[in-house]
Amino acid sequence: MISGRTRLILLAGDPIGHTKGYAEYAAAIAAAGHDCAYLPAHVPAGRLEDFLAGVVHLRNLAGVVCTIPHKQDAARIGRCDTAARRAGSANLLRPDGAGGWEASMVDGAGFLAAASAAGLPLARRRVQLLGAGGAGRAVAMAIAGEGPAALAIHDPDAVRAESLVGAVAAEFPGVPVQRHLGESEVLVNCSAIGMGSDDRLPCDAALIPGFVYDVVNRADTPLMVAARARGAVADHGYSMMAAQIPLVLRWMLERG
Amino acid sequence: MISGRTRLILLAGDPIGHTKGYAEYAAAIAAAGHDCAYLPAHVPAGRLEDFLAGVVHLRNLAGVVCTIPHKQDAARIGRCDTAARRAGSANLLRPDGAGGWEASMVDGAGFLAAASAAGLPLARRRVQLLGAGGAGRAVAMAIAGEGPAALAIHDPDAVRAESLVGAVAAEFPGVPVQRHLGESEVLVNCSAIGMGSDDRLPCDAALIPGFVYDVVNRADTPLMVAARARGAVADHGYSMMAAQIPLVLRWMLERG
Repeated sequence: MISGRTRLILLAGDPIGHTKGYAEYAAAIAAAGHDCAYLPAHVPAGRLEDFLAGVVHLRNLAGVVCTIPHKQDAARIGRCDTAARRAGSANLLRPDGAGGWEASMVDGAGFLAAASAAGLPLARRRVQLLGAGGAGRAVAMAIAGEGPAALAIHDPDAVRAESLVGAVAAEFPGVPVQRHLGESEVLVNCSAIGMGSDDRLPCDAALIPGFVYDVVNRADTPLMVAARARGAVADHGYSMMAAQIPLVLRWMLERG
Repeated sequence: MISGRTRLILLAGDPIGHTKGYAEYAAAIAAAGHDCAYLPAHVPAGRLEDFLAGVVHLRNLAGVVCTIPHKQDAARIGRCDTAARRAGSANLLRPDGAGGWEASMVDGAGFLAAASAAGLPLARRRVQLLGAGGAGRAVAMAIAGEGPAALAIHDPDAVRAESLVGAVAAEFPGVPVQRHLGESEVLVNCSAIGMGSDDRLPCDAALIPGFVYDVVNRADTPLMVAARARGAVADHGYSMMAAQIPLVLRWMLERG
């Protein structure tokens, strides 16, 4: 129940109408006994900083969760922790109490928790990552931290892929990482291919291995359908979103 | 249920923890079939304009309800309708779609609806108003619009009382209005006396007539207790708050 003491967590994105997770947040908030509400905030692209300059005065604001297209801006505006710095983007902001913002990035931690829950191995495995954008960057760093046998990164934009390969190598010198598209033991799709009404596979069907994760938050992407048809262990973005909820609540409400 | 399409109504005040009405708003919103949430926004005194400069970018913001201490600032920031202009304060703001704000004031209309529901007459009656602050100003204008036989205004701050008398006389030349404290048929308390743990009566008990309204949102203010003990028809601020809810929803969500 909302009261005068309820704190707010706002999800800033553009568009916002399609966003999910409100019922899941409400259930987690109730289960933890917090007096808090999680709400959509339709903030147009390029307006995050202006919006934050106003809501920094909102004393019952617990924090802002940032989604597309605000994650890079969030990392620029807030003081980044290690995960946000490595990813070059942030999906969490909280007031620092001095008129500024602290930034974190839990896409990677959410992916790891979801992968573990789904039974996807990463340590000592050959992992193929598709997509070197914002989500891909966070997930690549998280995978590298697990000590894979090799990490191959593919993106149609070779410059973007090369940039992520270099960043991972710099952060994790012991991890064999290269720009490559080929056979693997674990495939992780961080590209937008398969989102919405996109009916394409993000790679050749022959490259789908026994373990697959698709960060797109839909159970029936072409990749998920193909992976399941082949008997692969496969899961998708819903579990990554759900796995982030306790991380978000802890960081914003318990400041842990 | 909250979704990505939920619009927000924020109640801006300082302090905010004691504010009421959240369950009543939720029920009215659900009954009307709106996809909307009514939430507290703890905005410190003097910060309303800075806060609004940020949330003007929030495309799913339906509007901001302003309570103490923001009503004068709201009237200064927004383009006032007649009720807000007459009251010299506003309790409603909505985005005008061009980066600015429209302002309205429904304290007066809420009072009239509540008085009518409680069976308090105003037309052709001698009305005593106590308190010439923000609420008193809005209520005085609303009473004057009903055509009372006489309107007497009292405030310990004589300058404030005189200013309101002048303003009412200018807006309603046909209404006999003066600064005065004496016997009446209808007594309306718009002072803060009796709020919280204040156990004072706002006027001498001998001046309590057969019809009493106390804008303080508590059933057991000393004035309410005394009025009921004398068998007066009496009601208090809860009904004024509740009567405003449909007015707020119509103005913000249907822009009526």
